[in-house]
Amino acid sequence: MPRVITLLTDFGTQDTFVGVLKGVIKSFAPEADIVDLTHHVSPQDIHAGAFLLHTACRHFPPGTIHLAVVNPGVGSIRQPVAARIGDFTYVSPDNGLLSYVLSEDTLHQAVTLDDARYHRPMVSRTFHGRDIFAPVAAHLANGVSLGRFGTPLNELETFPIPRTQVSGDTLTCHVVYADIFGNVFLDLTEDQADIWNVSHFAAHLSGHVISGPAQSYSDVANGSPVALFGSSGHLEIAIRNGSARALFKLQIGDTVTLHRITL
Amino acid sequence: MPRVITLLTDFGTQDTFVGVLKGVIKSFAPEADIVDLTHHVSPQDIHAGAFLLHTACRHFPPGTIHLAVVNPGVGSIRQPVAARIGDFTYVSPDNGLLSYVLSEDTLHQAVTLDDARYHRPMVSRTFHGRDIFAPVAAHLANGVSLGRFGTPLNELETFPIPRTQVSGDTLTCHVVYADIFGNVFLDLTEDQADIWNVSHFAAHLSGHVISGPAQSYSDVANGSPVALFGSSGHLEIAIRNGSARALFKLQIGDTVTLHRITL
Amino acid sequence: MPRVITLLTDFGTQDTFVGVLKGVIKSFAPEADIVDLTHHVSPQDIHAGAFLLHTACRHFPPGTIHLAVVNPGVGSIRQPVAARIGDFTYVSPDNGLLSYVLSEDTLHQAVTLDDARYHRPMVSRTFHGRDIFAPVAAHLANGVSLGRFGTPLNELETFPIPRTQVSGDTLTCHVVYADIFGNVFLDLTEDQADIWNVSHFAAHLSGHVISGPAQSYSDVANGSPVALFGSSGHLEIAIRNGSARALFKLQIGDTVTLHRITL
Repeated sequence: MPRVITLLTDFGTQDTFVGVLKGVIKSFAPEADIVDLTHHVSPQDIHAGAFLLHTACRHFPPGTIHLAVVNPGVGSIRQPVAARIGDFTYVSPDNGLLSYVLSEDTLHQAVTLDDARYHRPMVSRTFHGRDIFAPVAAHLANGVSLGRFGTPLNELETFPIPRTQVSGDTLTCHVVYADIFGNVFLDLTEDQADIWNVSHFAAHLSGHVISGPAQSYSDVANGSPVALFGSSGHLEIAIRNGSARALFKLQIGDTVTLHRITL
Repeated sequence: MPRVITLLTDFGTQDTFVGVLKGVIKSFAPEADIVDLTHHVSPQDIHAGAFLLHTACRHFPPGTIHLAVVNPGVGSIRQPVAARIGDFTYVSPDNGLLSYVLSEDTLHQAVTLDDARYHRPMVSRTFHGRDIFAPVAAHLANGVSLGRFGTPLNELETFPIPRTQVSGDTLTCHVVYADIFGNVFLDLTEDQADIWNVSHFAAHLSGHVISGPAQSYSDVANGSPVALFGSSGHLEIAIRNGSARALFKLQIGDTVTLHRITL
Repeated sequence: MPRVITLLTDFGTQDTFVGVLKGVIKSFAPEADIVDLTHHVSPQDIHAGAFLLHTACRHFPPGTIHLAVVNPGVGSIRQPVAARIGDFTYVSPDNGLLSYVLSEDTLHQAVTLDDARYHRPMVSRTFHGRDIFAPVAAHLANGVSLGRFGTPLNELETFPIPRTQVSGDTLTCHVVYADIFGNVFLDLTEDQADIWNVSHFAAHLSGHVISGPAQSYSDVANGSPVALFGSSGHLEIAIRNGSARALFKLQIGDTVTLHRITL
């Protein structure tokens, strides 16, 4: 059975960067089955990329190789790494992109990709996706074992994962992502809400009070705000047929306060 | 030979919704061959989605499974269904998305997707694409027969397909789609025009008179309007290197009148 | 091993044109492995398409079939052709799209695609991609030899490839492409710079003087211009976290002058 390699990048699809990654993979591993997660992560937005990678990657078959490249805007390029975490193998820069994945799954093994035998012969300064990550992912798909790609690493770079704080009946949530529709994702998950017995709440946002959780976006009238646990398991603030991100001017990291209601 | 599964949605490619669909399909049917039709149907535009599905799906090999999800903006989510129509099997919400397909091809069999054994274990309220449609499409690709997915249905939801009206030398056409270039598609097809002996016509639009049909977009000067039977078989109103949709302010459902000319 | 067919077009992904190409290919060659290079070449921009095709295609396995369609905005549709050039087979209109490829690799064989047995039964006037190019690419993937598709051709249409002119310490470069990030690519390559001993230079642009080449985009402060040899081998003018194309108002064909510096 061919191994699946997924791709998540901030390369966009206007140019041929993604096509080139696929060409390199096909050159080394013709049977690899390549699937795009997305190439429209906001440029350099490692937090959004890490969240998207985490929520998407777990829907793939065990053994899937996830190649993720979102380059930081500051400082020099981070070390290229590969790691077995949970049921999957990840290939990415060591810049925090695996933070969400590492917050839930076990790190089994990690290496720095410093064995040049698994790179393209000439490694450019600006396109490690093509020259290091793609050939390594292809060799992994061919069955080369992780330990052969370079020097063992004990830990990977992570950023602190936002966690909802609870204090009495007040929950302090944080924005972790906003999707193309302007739906805003908070760090509160349905599982955590159950543990805390938060079966009803009121969220206060810019003068709006949103009672929740709703069962579907269509529980409210057009243009009205709604709060529900979405398909990712996270609490989402949405405007029916509108953009909660725009209306409430919310960005990743912003705080949203909920008040637990006991009926 | 692997079965082809096509995807047509209004999910966009900014987020990982489409990637997740593919992950679920690959989890259940690793050998399935997944092809994107488009993920940029205007959100909730069932008419455009139905037209695009119809014109694209017939170019695939018989036996192809077409998974189509465009969610209606109003009311609750429609029942998920699967249906064998003509040479293909379709998996979609029962909301009219199959209207154009059903207007030309024979409905052989349809079921409501109510057998939970073929769904993901936890079905969310907001992402039936992932939790019901993708696993069902995968099981279909694996050869599970249609009747096993749920309760038989006798008919599917459809909206009325626009049809050109002819009265003497006057043809009342309707806009059925506009593409990214601003070319506007009418319900009049070349086959129907032949039947009605409409070998020449004049279309009157906002003070412009367009004689047709032209043979190619380049029959007219830059910025000029042109009417021709396009690759879908439908009459198209276009502006050479411009947007007929914008210039003539045409929307799906609008009327365009043609006058038959006998030379 | 399945043959890879790549696709490069100006069709966009909003409509189902690309999906239809893939359906036709799968109908004739179910085992073909289809990879998108990009579908976002600027409409009718043959120069940009030719450059992108050239820089991307060489990363694919030998024997890959590259299907490229960018339609000229003026005049009638050019003849459809197929050609073996270097290690690859190309299928495209004979309109200059293969100019960059032909400037570096050997033309082994070319034919006009005039044998209708390898086309779809009904060829439309406006969608040769679907009716001629896709079926021909599929038949090539199935192993049909190039000579069978039509009449031999001795040469293909090309446009003049821009070449940096050197005169004393002055290099006159030309813009050959700008990517989605606004990075501007010049015709000067690192190999050519080495041959000319251009190890340091100053580029003068709209009052800015850019010393180069830098080693990475992060060699300069945010908002500052930088010149470096990028992953394609070409000299790129960029603004760190900005758009050099917008700031310097550069377009394909524009001239940029460098002064060689001897340290």
